Amino acid sequence: MYAYKLKIAYEGTAYSGWQVQPNAISIQETIVDVLKQILRVPHVTLIGAGRTDAGVHALEQVAHFRYEQPLDTYRLLLSINGLLPKDIRIKTFEQVPLDFHAQHSAKNKEYHYYLHLDRVMDPFRRAFCWHVSPRVNVDLLIEASQYFVGKHDFTTFANQAYAGSASRNAVRTIHRLDVCPIEGGLRLEFEGDGFLYKMVRNIVGTIIDVAAGKQKIEQIPIMMAAKDRRLAGRAAPPQGLFLVRVDY
Amino acid sequence: MYAYKLKIAYEGTAYSGWQVQPNAISIQETIVDVLKQILRVPHVTLIGAGRTDAGVHALEQVAHFRYEQPLDTYRLLLSINGLLPKDIRIKTFEQVPLDFHAQHSAKNKEYHYYLHLDRVMDPFRRAFCWHVSPRVNVDLLIEASQYFVGKHDFTTFANQAYAGSASRNAVRTIHRLDVCPIEGGLRLEFEGDGFLYKMVRNIVGTIIDVAAGKQKIEQIPIMMAAKDRRLAGRAAPPQGLFLVRVDY
Repeated sequence: MYAYKLKIAYEGTAYSGWQVQPNAISIQETIVDVLKQILRVPHVTLIGAGRTDAGVHALEQVAHFRYEQPLDTYRLLLSINGLLPKDIRIKTFEQVPLDFHAQHSAKNKEYHYYLHLDRVMDPFRRAFCWHVSPRVNVDLLIEASQYFVGKHDFTTFANQAYAGSASRNAVRTIHRLDVCPIEGGLRLEFEGDGFLYKMVRNIVGTIIDVAAGKQKIEQIPIMMAAKDRRLAGRAAPPQGLFLVRVDY
Repeated sequence: MYAYKLKIAYEGTAYSGWQVQPNAISIQETIVDVLKQILRVPHVTLIGAGRTDAGVHALEQVAHFRYEQPLDTYRLLLSINGLLPKDIRIKTFEQVPLDFHAQHSAKNKEYHYYLHLDRVMDPFRRAFCWHVSPRVNVDLLIEASQYFVGKHDFTTFANQAYAGSASRNAVRTIHRLDVCPIEGGLRLEFEGDGFLYKMVRNIVGTIIDVAAGKQKIEQIPIMMAAKDRRLAGRAAPPQGLFLVRVDY
């Protein structure tokens, strides 16, 4: 048995998200269909580093699968990309040790969230950012973002992915949350040891509520301590979010 | 009578191009429909600085129209954008002297053409570049590009927009054709006093033919002197082309 690791870039606009779901096309099954066709096998189990929701993008998602035989990965990379739709590209394809697991071996992840603050929205960014009012207070936004850095119980900022999943440990460490100025907006860079379901989008939504004056900044630690999802702000829309890197 | 100037950004992917055409939706008519609705008039004549083809984008197309009354342009900018589809945005809307003409008053135009040279295409650029083989000779590409700088008769590199249009003067001056390295590719920056129909795309196609070894560089001046469209290379695909600026 051999293990193979893929680095994958995709624009999430047209998909139901990474994960296979009934009645909607996922990125995972789109890739699995191509692998089954190329490897001529009835089943391929492709495990991703993490789920991304409908409309969320990836510059570098990581996934692995196992196969009985050694593969010519250099040649196969082009064949797979030739069969995939153009909004999904395999960037690298390599053999890895059999104990590699895209989800369980992941040590750190980086996500970026793009905010667009111009009065008129750039039409080229409409699927890649959240267009918020240019009147948000950027100093307050930066200050609010720093409340989330460090080791915290993020229950308040996590949606339940499945019934019963709330019992899981919700303590995560955000190593870095940098607010970087870009043309016409801001890029929020999140780096951490793991992220709960919708955690980045819920944090961004809360930060924007504070920066727009809809929520007091002093409420953030109170919301966090309450461990109650109903206290957090609205989730930021998916199209501003990019999975940028997974470290092993 | 008052004259109004619009600066317009659009992603051309979903349109038949700038110009109104039968049986296809153009950017021009999409904007005209919104102007008619907002100004409550049966007709608006909107004149663009130049046509862009199906799939070609604009960072800053310029257009003008006339209207009987003074308009609150600041307020109208938001109303117009609110009714336009999100792939077209009016960036600025201002009153100009009555003798302003978006096409005839134009002094210079800048177009950029994006080439993507990585082995694997970036899925986020699929609608915004031409993905060519990474084996093209970039030194030769730069050398070939410089043959087009200066004042030339560009008949060989112009398609006929309409029957009979070949008789028009095809002498144009390209002030600058810079080849700029960008991540994973090149940006070809064209600046000139005017561009004939499909001229930029035909020049890029010819430059790539030379850089890929399909055409000899010495042929470029011979092709140009022959004034025969059949001698030029294939046109580069539309999605790599951006109208960047129009100077008045």
